[in-house]
Parts: sequence; C-alpha cells; structure tokens
Amino acid sequence: MIQTSSSLLGDVVAAIHPNDRQHAIEAQRRLDSLTKPIGSLGELEAIAARMFSIFAGKIPLPLHRAVYVFAGDHGVTEEGVSAYPREVTAQMVHNFLSGGAAINVLARLHHADLTVVDVGVDAEFEDAPGLCRMKVRRGSRNMQREPAMTEEEMTSALEAGIRLANASKAKGEHLVAVGEMGIGNTTAASAITAILVDEQAGTVTGRGAGLDAEGRNRKLNVIRRSLKRHFGTTQKPPAPLDVLRCVGGLEIAATTGFILGAAANRTAVICDGFISTSAAAVAHAIAPQVSDYLFAGHCSEEPGHRHLLRTIGITPILNLGMRLGEGTGAVLAMPIIESAVRLFNEMATFSSAGVSVADKA
Amino acid sequence: MIQTSSSLLGDVVAAIHPNDRQHAIEAQRRLDSLTKPIGSLGELEAIAARMFSIFAGKIPLPLHRAVYVFAGDHGVTEEGVSAYPREVTAQMVHNFLSGGAAINVLARLHHADLTVVDVGVDAEFEDAPGLCRMKVRRGSRNMQREPAMTEEEMTSALEAGIRLANASKAKGEHLVAVGEMGIGNTTAASAITAILVDEQAGTVTGRGAGLDAEGRNRKLNVIRRSLKRHFGTTQKPPAPLDVLRCVGGLEIAATTGFILGAAANRTAVICDGFISTSAAAVAHAIAPQVSDYLFAGHCSEEPGHRHLLRTIGITPILNLGMRLGEGTGAVLAMPIIESAVRLFNEMATFSSAGVSVADKA
Repeated sequence: MIQTSSSLLGDVVAAIHPNDRQHAIEAQRRLDSLTKPIGSLGELEAIAARMFSIFAGKIPLPLHRAVYVFAGDHGVTEEGVSAYPREVTAQMVHNFLSGGAAINVLARLHHADLTVVDVGVDAEFEDAPGLCRMKVRRGSRNMQREPAMTEEEMTSALEAGIRLANASKAKGEHLVAVGEMGIGNTTAASAITAILVDEQAGTVTGRGAGLDAEGRNRKLNVIRRSLKRHFGTTQKPPAPLDVLRCVGGLEIAATTGFILGAAANRTAVICDGFISTSAAAVAHAIAPQVSDYLFAGHCSEEPGHRHLLRTIGITPILNLGMRLGEGTGAVLAMPIIESAVRLFNEMATFSSAGVSVADKA
Repeated sequence: MIQTSSSLLGDVVAAIHPNDRQHAIEAQRRLDSLTKPIGSLGELEAIAARMFSIFAGKIPLPLHRAVYVFAGDHGVTEEGVSAYPREVTAQMVHNFLSGGAAINVLARLHHADLTVVDVGVDAEFEDAPGLCRMKVRRGSRNMQREPAMTEEEMTSALEAGIRLANASKAKGEHLVAVGEMGIGNTTAASAITAILVDEQAGTVTGRGAGLDAEGRNRKLNVIRRSLKRHFGTTQKPPAPLDVLRCVGGLEIAATTGFILGAAANRTAVICDGFISTSAAAVAHAIAPQVSDYLFAGHCSEEPGHRHLLRTIGITPILNLGMRLGEGTGAVLAMPIIESAVRLFNEMATFSSAGVSVADKA
C-alpha cells in the first residue's frame, strides 16, 4: 500500500484492477478470423485488443472522446529555465478558451470535448465555458530551493485530478486524452524522469519549447541542484509521491490523479508528450496496473520521453517529431485508436465473406 | 523524354510541374507565426507546407477524399510464390464490394469514397456500385517465363490509371489514396524494387502475406530467375517502363498511370504499402517531380518498402507495422494530413492571440 494522507487516493489505487487476460485471448481469436493475413494490421491489433480488454469485451461505440489540459506555473521559472516568459501559461489558457490553440483545432476536428483545468496558473480567471477552476496555488514553489509542493498542495492537486476523472466517467466519456500547459514544466518532467527511469539528468533533459545550448545547460544545472537537494542523501530510491512533491508541479500532480482515477473507472487514457507521460510514470510507479488503461499518443522529440514510455511499457502510436504538448499528440492518435476498434468490430471474417484461408506455405 | 508508344502517357508526363518554391517559403512563414514553439508540430508542418504548395496557396476545405484499390492477378503465382491461393484476389474484390474488408471500414470512417478497379483479376465481375471495370487481361503473364505484360497490355493498364485520375479530378477529389489487391504482387514489387533501388533481391524480398522461410526462399529464387531472364545481360540500368512491363503487373501499371495523372492534375496522392509504392517508384523514375504530390501513408513491414520510400524521397506518416495493402495505411494517414491542414489554417497567430514570443534563451 502506498503511504498517503489522502484516503481518496488510497481508495482509487485500491480500485485499479489489471485487465482480464481472457479478454486479450478472445480479442486475438477474433482478430485472426478477420479477412486479412494474420497480424497484418500490426499495432492496430494490439490497440484493438487493449480496448476490448479495457471495456471487458464490449467496446462502446461511438467512443465518447474528451481531452483535459492541465495548466500550472512553476516556481523554478525564476531560474531562467524556459525560452518563454512565465506569463505565457496564462496567455495560452486564454488562447485555449478562445479556440485558437493547436489543441482547439485538433479537438474540434477529432470530436473531443476540451476542458482546460487551472490547477496552478499564476493568474486569476473568470468562469468560462470549458474552464475548470481548481487552482491549488498560483504556481508551484521553486524546486531548487524547497519542495515544489507541500504535502497538502500535492494532495489537493492529486484529488482534483481524481475528482475530474470521476466526473468524466459520470459524463460517459470512454477515451480521454491528457495534455498540459505550463512554462517551465519540462524542467519538472526531466527531474521526475531522471529519478523514475534511473538515468542521469543530462540524458533526459532537452531544450523544452526552444532553449539554445546555453539555456539548456542552465536548465540542466537547475535540475541537478534540485535533485541533489531533495534526494542527494537518500540511499534507497525515493517514493514516487516524494518525487512528485519535491520536483513535480501542480498540473503534473493533477494529471497523475486523473490517470489513476480514470484507470480505476476503466476509462481508456491517452497520454501525450513528455510532461503528461511523466505524470503517467508517477501513476505507474504507484500502481503498475495503470498501464493496462494507458495509450501513448506519440513519442515526442524531448529525449526523456522515450525513456518514460519504456519504463511504463507502452508503445507510442505516432512518431511525428512533435513537441508541443497541450494534448495535441494524444488527440491526434484518437482517429487511429478509433480505426483499430472499427476494424475489430466491423470487418468480415473469412467464413462470413467466403474468402479462402492461407495455404500451407 | 520517355520512350513510349502512348501519346496520352507522354502528354501526362509533360504536364507534371514541380511545386513553386515560393509557396513552401510562404507556408513556413505562416507556420512560424502560429501560437506554438517554432517547429513544434514536427512532421505536421512539412505535411501542411506540401499541401499548401500542391494547391498553390489555397488548400480546398473540406478535402474531398477518395481511395482507389487496383486489383489484378499475377501469372507468377503458378510458381507458388504466395501463401494464399490465386482465387483470393477475386474473393477479396467481392469482399470489397460487399463492404467487409479492412479498407471498407477505414474508408467509411475517414470519409473516403472507395473505388475498386479491376484491371487484371482472373474472374469476371458484373457491374456493381464502386467497381470500375477496366480489365486488360485475366492476370499478368508469368514473369519467370516471359514479360509480365506485352507493350500493349502495359499501355492499356497505364492509360486506364490516367483516365481514372482525370475522372477523379473531374469529380473534385483533392486527396486520393492508392491501394491494391493481387495475390502474388509482392513478388512483382520486390523485382521492381531490386532494379529501381539497385539492391540485391534478397534485401527487398519479404514474406508477403505470410510465407514461411521455405516459401520465401522459393519466391526469392523466382524473383532472381526473372530478373536474370529480363535484365541479366543489360549493361546499363533498364528503362523504368521496361522494368514495369517485364516484372510488374497490371494493377501496378494502372497505379503508376494513376499517380502520374494525379500529379499532372495537382491532386495530392497518398501511397500505401510496398506494392503501391513500387508503382510510385516507377512513376518517380519516369518523372521525378511526382514526389512533390506524393505522401507516404505509412511504412510497412515488407523490407523493400523503406528502400522505395528513400529512393522516392518521401517520409512515411505512420509506422504501425502494418502489411495489409488495400490502401489501408494510406487512408489511415488521411486524418493526420487533414489535421496538419486544419492546424495550418485555423490556429491563432502570436499577434492575434496576444501571446508573448520566446525570450532570447
């Protein structure tokens, strides 16, 4: 059992069950009966089988799709770790609310309901359609000097995510993408990744939204100092929630809570880029069986991302060199997942179509 | 100028013009003004820029989408080169016409009008909705013993493809996928590929729809013998149309004609797997500027496919380990291409959204 002061979190983790192997076997049997050479749909077959398992043998159609963009600022931006000023987090939230950001375009095109979740933006917002106001604090604390969150702040953010996952279930959503917005959050994600995948900070730290080589070095030094401050004297690997609290961020914590809640509710979750996948990795470290409910929308250009995906054990659906966040790579994978499910459900079988099966070659 | 007895083909090749570089520059300028870090949409930016160039600065929306599945049998199936009996080509055409194949499912989901083109199936079909009857012969000839097509047969198949591309343009189609069905056609595609990419047959020959190691060896020997018979004594590289005629197939020739015709009409074409890309490689060898109009829907598991893509100079959009053909990987890329275009057209700019640009990092 995890150590947590949140009974909600403890209950949710206890409610996440691995998928029934029998459904995967049944799915493969059906896939092999369809009018195509065995295995010829490649990754689409694994996607269909996973969806069949998540929904325990009955995939709901049409898939009700949604995307949640968790937004928060980061105290560590004081150290000059981003190419963009901190104000951009709030400006982009306004861009989301007026429909002009990349995620708006993709959510409209691929029929995903978009919710922007303010868990930690350093600005005040009025009520607005599509905005969920769950602010815990105006930005996390500067991880180089103190833990990014207090225990209470982290718990509030985690629980906000869980409550949203429960609301998503209540709304009948089946396939949800998680994205984020937060200037400075690749710094937090790199620090989390270094610990959770047990790699050097240099291996998992990239240029974020567009640092030059000097800026990236500054960021790397901030990450190294933060990791040393919080975990430098620990002998054993730190607990996942301590990693999240010390070097994470409010939007990352909320995403972690959301993913755990979605898995407990048997909702299929698509994680997006480096930051949302770092949240997924925290969720996975707490409850490894969440990977049964997780899809990786894509593999981003941030060097830490592929390490996280390997640790969680999920294969990216797309590899398009994207590094935008906001949930864009996750929503872009939705038509591929829907395709896999439709093929699984709608293709004719060899016997129904009167097609000859393979000779002994 | 190519040597051809077809004046239609000669006219089409002469009508294919490379895209105007100015449009690519203009597209990049717009991409860099959108509310996202420079380059952060990865391959989607190149896709959008190419679409902007193909349509000379005005991408038509909504994109009218279609998929053409060219079907034909292969004389070389006499040599036991496929895991499936020859009858499966005709059986699968019936499956397409009754809506049960993978391509039907994907075409329905992604709003692509499906046309099945019989250019060489060894069966007679009644008129049917969605079937285009352009049969040249009931199967190509056995390439191990004689050229797969006579000059006249090849020209008829090429011209069938060109006429279809012109009909597609007349119907207002903007984005067309090409797929195929033909038992034995990976044998033809491997033979074409070995010559056009200048690799050993063994490097570009795979297991097709599901051969075991022994079957794949048999197939490889057939390809080697065929290449030796037709090109063994040639000193210089054979002309692309001679390659197509001697070791190609009727559906491959029709696809080549279609791609050339589409490029002449400034229609965007998505090629699918190994076979349709071998047709694209013939088109590219005849008229290199066709690559400006071509997208690679995906990279298949067949080992020759990546060689063809490299030779043509196009990057696969998807990498999902598929090897089904029928146009499935091409249609699956349509929502990605549409996404790229929508982002390009609909995203806010930094100035319109009031978002700060990057600091000097």
